[in-house]
Amino acid sequence: MVLNTQEHTSKRYDAELETVRSRVLQMGGLVESQISSAINALSTGNVQLADQVIADDDRVNALEVQIDEDCSHIIARRQPAAQDLRMVIMVIKMITDLERIGDEAEKIARMTKLIYSSERLTLPRFTEVKIAAGYAIDMLKKSLDAFARIDLAAAASVVRQDRLLDDQFRGILRQLITFMMEDARTISTSIEILFVAKALERIGDHAKNMAEYVVYLVKGKDVRHVTEEEFEREASSD
Amino acid sequence: MVLNTQEHTSKRYDAELETVRSRVLQMGGLVESQISSAINALSTGNVQLADQVIADDDRVNALEVQIDEDCSHIIARRQPAAQDLRMVIMVIKMITDLERIGDEAEKIARMTKLIYSSERLTLPRFTEVKIAAGYAIDMLKKSLDAFARIDLAAAASVVRQDRLLDDQFRGILRQLITFMMEDARTISTSIEILFVAKALERIGDHAKNMAEYVVYLVKGKDVRHVTEEEFEREASSD
Repeated sequence: MVLNTQEHTSKRYDAELETVRSRVLQMGGLVESQISSAINALSTGNVQLADQVIADDDRVNALEVQIDEDCSHIIARRQPAAQDLRMVIMVIKMITDLERIGDEAEKIARMTKLIYSSERLTLPRFTEVKIAAGYAIDMLKKSLDAFARIDLAAAASVVRQDRLLDDQFRGILRQLITFMMEDARTISTSIEILFVAKALERIGDHAKNMAEYVVYLVKGKDVRHVTEEEFEREASSD
Repeated sequence: MVLNTQEHTSKRYDAELETVRSRVLQMGGLVESQISSAINALSTGNVQLADQVIADDDRVNALEVQIDEDCSHIIARRQPAAQDLRMVIMVIKMITDLERIGDEAEKIARMTKLIYSSERLTLPRFTEVKIAAGYAIDMLKKSLDAFARIDLAAAASVVRQDRLLDDQFRGILRQLITFMMEDARTISTSIEILFVAKALERIGDHAKNMAEYVVYLVKGKDVRHVTEEEFEREASSD
């Protein structure tokens, strides 16, 4: 009887952990679609879609609050130890990053509205920005995958990809500077586009943070402040 | 005898919580001096000081890792409940913000090196940037104070001050745009200064996050995603 109760308790505990895990993935999916929509709004000039992204940030925030409460509840009631505890602490940190990725998507949507509200001079094509957005979204997806499957190789690839995104950002910056120097009337819009690129770079940083938490979860070792080489070594060692 | 042991245990537990609290304040103090030094390096062109800021970011990172471990330890060993648990979770979130403030100070130091490495054309005076830095540092101090003294009024004032900092940022942006339009040769440097201003704006956002955690600690209510008016109401109600 006692054993049964314990088993039941343990099953409910497992179910609670599973709920938290799936809510994190749900939040990740929502945030991912927020970035896609924001970039879509930017490249097509769809201001209504930008408004939608801004409005939907509330849903991201609500999920953060919900998951935070779930985690507090688990800590208070289940007294998790070892890997379970690391998982819960990781989730508390991860959702902060996810929420801020949501904020960056909202910023891109706000910039889009600004860009299309002023008289449109020649707009630079958004090819390079879209490439950066592709990297950022891919990094986010991979870090969520790394979390869902506790996949260290996926985590390591996010860290590598962050360098590509940073290079892409610097490329956009150089391009925009040239653009501004050639025609001073494009300065305001160029700076708004620069802020979009900066938001994408930040999204990459947040995805990288999340990937690092996965390594912490598995190894119990903190890899947040090590070199890329050390990270690779940790992620690939048994 | 049993009672004595419990009392002893409880005292040690209190001491552990106190250690965490004081380490957070230590980390806050370090981060504050990192911002001051970075801005000092920027306005005086002291590249060595900028290098020092970049090197010292490791100390900020080490404190984050240390405090995170302290918190995991307390959760696993002490099974904190109610307000203690909220305090520990708050600290886990706060130090993430402090660490990222440290990163922003490092970015300002890197921008300083860039600004002074190129041939110096006319530099805009840094008066406005220094005002923004003053706001950011003040917000950080107040949010640490709010944490140390569990002071809701201080927390509320941080949230109000964030609006001032945002206004100041927009002022700097307008000034830099004028500067760039008047002389295209200043574009690169202006953008570097813009990144400094952006870093200060972010520091304000992080300080605001920390102030919001203090209200969460006291009220057990999440005020992260409410309007400023609702925040004021929460912070001032009994």
